[in-house]
Amino acid sequence: MTQTEWLPVPGVRLAAVEAGIKKANRKDLVVLELAPGSRVSGVFTLNRFCAAPVQVARAHLGKARPRFLMINTGYANAGTGEKGMANCLATCDLLAAEAGCEAAEILPFSTGVIGEQFPLTAFERGLPKALAALDGHQWGNAAEGIMTTDTRPKVTSRRVELNGVPITVTGMAKGSGMIKPNMATMLGFIATDAPIAQPLLDRWVKALADCSFNRVTVDGDTSTNDACMLVSTAQAEMAEITELTEQNALLYQALEDVFVELAQALVRDGEGATKFVEIQVQGAAGDADARVVAETIAHSPLVKTALFASDPNWGRILAAIGRAPIAELDVSRVNVWLDQVALVENGGVADGYQEAQGAAVMAQQDILIRADLGAGDGQCTVWTCDFSYDYVKINAEYRT
Amino acid sequence: MTQTEWLPVPGVRLAAVEAGIKKANRKDLVVLELAPGSRVSGVFTLNRFCAAPVQVARAHLGKARPRFLMINTGYANAGTGEKGMANCLATCDLLAAEAGCEAAEILPFSTGVIGEQFPLTAFERGLPKALAALDGHQWGNAAEGIMTTDTRPKVTSRRVELNGVPITVTGMAKGSGMIKPNMATMLGFIATDAPIAQPLLDRWVKALADCSFNRVTVDGDTSTNDACMLVSTAQAEMAEITELTEQNALLYQALEDVFVELAQALVRDGEGATKFVEIQVQGAAGDADARVVAETIAHSPLVKTALFASDPNWGRILAAIGRAPIAELDVSRVNVWLDQVALVENGGVADGYQEAQGAAVMAQQDILIRADLGAGDGQCTVWTCDFSYDYVKINAEYRT
Repeated sequence: MTQTEWLPVPGVRLAAVEAGIKKANRKDLVVLELAPGSRVSGVFTLNRFCAAPVQVARAHLGKARPRFLMINTGYANAGTGEKGMANCLATCDLLAAEAGCEAAEILPFSTGVIGEQFPLTAFERGLPKALAALDGHQWGNAAEGIMTTDTRPKVTSRRVELNGVPITVTGMAKGSGMIKPNMATMLGFIATDAPIAQPLLDRWVKALADCSFNRVTVDGDTSTNDACMLVSTAQAEMAEITELTEQNALLYQALEDVFVELAQALVRDGEGATKFVEIQVQGAAGDADARVVAETIAHSPLVKTALFASDPNWGRILAAIGRAPIAELDVSRVNVWLDQVALVENGGVADGYQEAQGAAVMAQQDILIRADLGAGDGQCTVWTCDFSYDYVKINAEYRT
Repeated sequence: MTQTEWLPVPGVRLAAVEAGIKKANRKDLVVLELAPGSRVSGVFTLNRFCAAPVQVARAHLGKARPRFLMINTGYANAGTGEKGMANCLATCDLLAAEAGCEAAEILPFSTGVIGEQFPLTAFERGLPKALAALDGHQWGNAAEGIMTTDTRPKVTSRRVELNGVPITVTGMAKGSGMIKPNMATMLGFIATDAPIAQPLLDRWVKALADCSFNRVTVDGDTSTNDACMLVSTAQAEMAEITELTEQNALLYQALEDVFVELAQALVRDGEGATKFVEIQVQGAAGDADARVVAETIAHSPLVKTALFASDPNWGRILAAIGRAPIAELDVSRVNVWLDQVALVENGGVADGYQEAQGAAVMAQQDILIRADLGAGDGQCTVWTCDFSYDYVKINAEYRT
């Protein structure tokens, strides 16, 4: 397996253009063209206030095989009522007319401010430019084109060989991670030329999102617009893949690597984030309990501000574990480590623990918090970041 | 009913002294002496990592009628293991020996840093001073003596007459409210001279805490040390009160007023708080649903930073409602108001809403967010505050 910055995926052409949707002089409209025969599957936000494009993309996925993904920034087209829905359908019609396909073959995605209507004229201007610029080598520009509060594009690739046939997996994502910025829409688009059968693609995208993006947006605090799409262009010459086997395990691994790297990149670029924190909970009664505890630690504003301050405040970690809503917890069996440093043993400060040891780990940029509940075999890992002044600043000043 | 700053409660004498527990020159040890025959009932943190004093106070409450409440700041005595438990019991022994009572007649409370042992010598010095200083007119000093990150003491009184007998209710509290500061221990001590039978006192303290303190620490994110005690000194000359009747409804109302005023004072003094926000959810399928939705809005860092920025960002409110974990929600029936300004109608921006209207409400210090889910008669009110730079600052620098 080779890792490079990113590789084109046979069957995917992209373009990112300046359509002037909200601000001038920035890429704000991205189009992905998928080769005929491509399959797409995806997961969407669970938020009931889901945006018009989410509703349309979901409906279109049920009707036809997608030929285009269309992503705009600036406006989320959420909370925009009937007019927002009409506008969203109109953008699909515009692209369909330009490209000579059916509107149902287009999946729209939006990210930006809620509750304001976007200007159709910008799409009228931008879509022809985008179609004219389609090119397989535009992943980098496309990853920039879908950014909002992100400070850097997030795009990565893996290449594997299945029975001698080279296969590419490339993905891009935007969003500022689990700290849930304003309309922190998480969008992810991952494509491979491997021919994956639709039912398997449906299962894989759920499993892959669950072990990656769902580990950073850990409380289900999905925005109105979140979406993650997995594309199989089926351009690689091999028999269709209908189930996970030893032969194609490498492909699944490559997909997982891309999903996880993108998800972690969201956290690393979290709004105001200065630390990357992995939280491993083990020894829980079950995986579900482990997840609840890991998420409770990850969401604690107290733990997050301590991380920002590089303060090995293990009391806050214990307090978070202690209030996690699980059925049983014997605090006298709880152990906690910061990297390799034993912080808590049997529910109290570890024998011989010195504050300087904890402070040394906390001073790092990447930090591992590991907790063992001493109850069973359940485990879960989530990723998070700290909570800084800049988080408040970014979110307080977002619309100004 | 008359409201004054605070009134002494017959049967309660208090003292607040500088014991030098952690820092010099600050009141850090408070003792309340209760007249013989007083009844005490309380609610404690649900956190499984509960501090030694919480365990001891709970056990002592089951053994004897309390004669003293003893509160120290500086150290929470949580996560301190067997030594912390021994120290806690030792402080009870010290006070019992000085006061000539049983250790089981003493309820200890601590607030401060987790995981460090407190110095017994400070209690040896401080407790005799405190006993010598006991006085019914020390509520103001006692309210100062239990402060940690609080910026002002929280104490209030109500006076009512029951069949011509004057009754006093006075309470004090500390804590910086629902934004859950580091060891934001919430401590509340409310006393009345009305004779309330123990079983009724037990029921009332639960009900009163639930409509007050539990509406500001809305996610159950209780610290390791939270406690709220209701004292009936039974000094007023009247028949014991064994149930809520028309005759004593005024007393219950006075108690509720004191509980709610103290709870709201915690939010108003929230760490870094610049706004006081009441969140009313109505029209829910049931009260439980209303509470979940109200708490989800109240806990959203996005809503809280928007409040800090005085930004009428209704999209964030809708997004919070949309992700609240309730069984059913028809977004097209949701309406939201900022004070009297209709912000959202039928799940979209309200007809004729102008940003300037929302901005005017947001500029106030006290803000009401009201949401109607259009599903039933369930309702709930919670109180919260905004999320500012200073919250991060206070919690990042807490131990330095």
